[in-house]
Amino acid sequence: MPTVHDLDTPSVLIDLDRMAANIARMQAYCDAHGLAFRPHIKTHKIPEIARMQVEAGAVGIACQKVSEAEIFAQAGFTDIQIPYNIVGPHKTARLMELALYNWVAVSADHPSVIAGLGDAARAHDLRLRVLVELETDIHRTGAPVEEVVNLAQRIEQDDHLHFLGLLVYPSSLAMRPAIQEALDRLNRAGIGVEVVSGGGTGAARCAHEIPELTELRVGTYVFNDWATVGKGWASPDDCAMTVLTTVVSRPSSDRGILDAGSKTLAADRWDDAHGYIVEYPEARLYQLSEEHAHVDFSACAERPVIGERVHVIPVHTCVVSNLHHQLYGVRGDDIEVIWPVAARGQVW
Amino acid sequence: MPTVHDLDTPSVLIDLDRMAANIARMQAYCDAHGLAFRPHIKTHKIPEIARMQVEAGAVGIACQKVSEAEIFAQAGFTDIQIPYNIVGPHKTARLMELALYNWVAVSADHPSVIAGLGDAARAHDLRLRVLVELETDIHRTGAPVEEVVNLAQRIEQDDHLHFLGLLVYPSSLAMRPAIQEALDRLNRAGIGVEVVSGGGTGAARCAHEIPELTELRVGTYVFNDWATVGKGWASPDDCAMTVLTTVVSRPSSDRGILDAGSKTLAADRWDDAHGYIVEYPEARLYQLSEEHAHVDFSACAERPVIGERVHVIPVHTCVVSNLHHQLYGVRGDDIEVIWPVAARGQVW
Repeated sequence: MPTVHDLDTPSVLIDLDRMAANIARMQAYCDAHGLAFRPHIKTHKIPEIARMQVEAGAVGIACQKVSEAEIFAQAGFTDIQIPYNIVGPHKTARLMELALYNWVAVSADHPSVIAGLGDAARAHDLRLRVLVELETDIHRTGAPVEEVVNLAQRIEQDDHLHFLGLLVYPSSLAMRPAIQEALDRLNRAGIGVEVVSGGGTGAARCAHEIPELTELRVGTYVFNDWATVGKGWASPDDCAMTVLTTVVSRPSSDRGILDAGSKTLAADRWDDAHGYIVEYPEARLYQLSEEHAHVDFSACAERPVIGERVHVIPVHTCVVSNLHHQLYGVRGDDIEVIWPVAARGQVW
Repeated sequence: MPTVHDLDTPSVLIDLDRMAANIARMQAYCDAHGLAFRPHIKTHKIPEIARMQVEAGAVGIACQKVSEAEIFAQAGFTDIQIPYNIVGPHKTARLMELALYNWVAVSADHPSVIAGLGDAARAHDLRLRVLVELETDIHRTGAPVEEVVNLAQRIEQDDHLHFLGLLVYPSSLAMRPAIQEALDRLNRAGIGVEVVSGGGTGAARCAHEIPELTELRVGTYVFNDWATVGKGWASPDDCAMTVLTTVVSRPSSDRGILDAGSKTLAADRWDDAHGYIVEYPEARLYQLSEEHAHVDFSACAERPVIGERVHVIPVHTCVVSNLHHQLYGVRGDDIEVIWPVAARGQVW
């Protein structure tokens, strides 16, 4: 069996035991609280990992792009939610091709998005499930609670659309009053709600305190990363993804350079660092060039020599997967599986 | 002929006329000042574009990774410099396979790097060209000027290595005294120098003021980006790369969301923005999620509707190319060529 010593660097390793524990823990949480679980595949973009999530009990998957959903539909996943406004004739046509043979739901936050979905569904002679997205405190997409009934009615009034329910991201505890108000308004308008879909790795910790939720979408939990650790949502031992790198330069006694820059780790930061070096906890990964990580080892009693290999827990796993041809599933030093990142770069 | 209206979004467009002008301008500059020009292909990772650069007069190419060099060697490029410490038995072995059939040079900043290169060259029974990298004010890799003679001698003393000269990144004007001192020390030690290789899109503007340079390596100039504009090195009209995006949400009168997040534009910032929207110069692209660009349109008299397409000049073109399956070469609205990004994701 090949081992990590056979790999060149940088290479992205997935600790299979840690990932399995992360999958089991989240599914057990959802099972305990009667929540349907829908893992977001944007984190790994690998059908084989989604298969493990479904086998553990997930009801289906969430994808962020139609092109991701196309890859996963080809891989045999039939229950796909895209929590995104699908806009424009190219993309709505592709969405309908997908919806012809799969259980597909999308979200919408504006009448013009709903109108575009309706036109495309009519042209394909099918009925598409649509969730209304509620705005949250991250101020990204989503409609204000006052708009929810209007949007739901527009969906219901279109013979080619079906109002499925509400979608919230992130479904933090602070969102509960707005969710309750939206449901109350829909109830008073006589509109049925099948699904209330919450999401977010942080929000997953309080999903049981929002009993209105029927479903949870979470992505990052499968690997965890230095940001989820920093936010207190995971411990370093829950981090399944590390990037195996080599120390390629030691330009001074304090500084070192790893062969993993922003094209390997992405440029995301947490708490002024671009990742955490497992073997040198006191080191600070303070800057990235495209192919260099700049590390300050001044706080470390022992310091590495050129050629030494170290493992980096990245700040944001979802963008790391997207940069790599494949991930290596390991148990100890053994490489048990090599997964092509099938949906990486699928931005359409 | 297909047009940009046939494309889904987000798609990365390259203005062929602007790129041709950028290529011609840099080559003319190098020709005027007697500098060999060696474009750095990390910016585009596309052999067809490197071919245009060589046809314009470039002497060869620079690659940042051995895996990039392998792709470009397969595409027919034989003169390849890798300005990087190549470390470890896996990578030095691959480097030597490359050097068997191509003119290859690498840089080194430490005796242990030189020893590793020598061992691998001996095992492959060839002689590898090595440049000594001089440290600069960016404090990345590179040896101090006092070490240059020692490193050059170690290279010369190895029958399987050949000391080619000095490498500097970036070769800003402030580096001239150190370059002069290094050359003086080498001269006094009786060590010949064939190449003094400078680099950097900014440093290219003053390369003629460092007559010691024999060669210039530049990458970003071929496309330019919002960071090179911000630094005063290019105008917006010199930017050949734009990302065609769609406005997918207008959650408030001030805000808008484009379908291009950190998996499309990368997370780089310049002057508190993640890019520049050509159609809305007063808009501010203030935040990115993975698949959302968050835009503040409050300073714009006219504001877009959902479905409108806009062009974004990204902050850093080199990391954008690396995120996409292909780039579209356009002249006006016509798509004249589609280039696969052959070496994207080549991190080894």
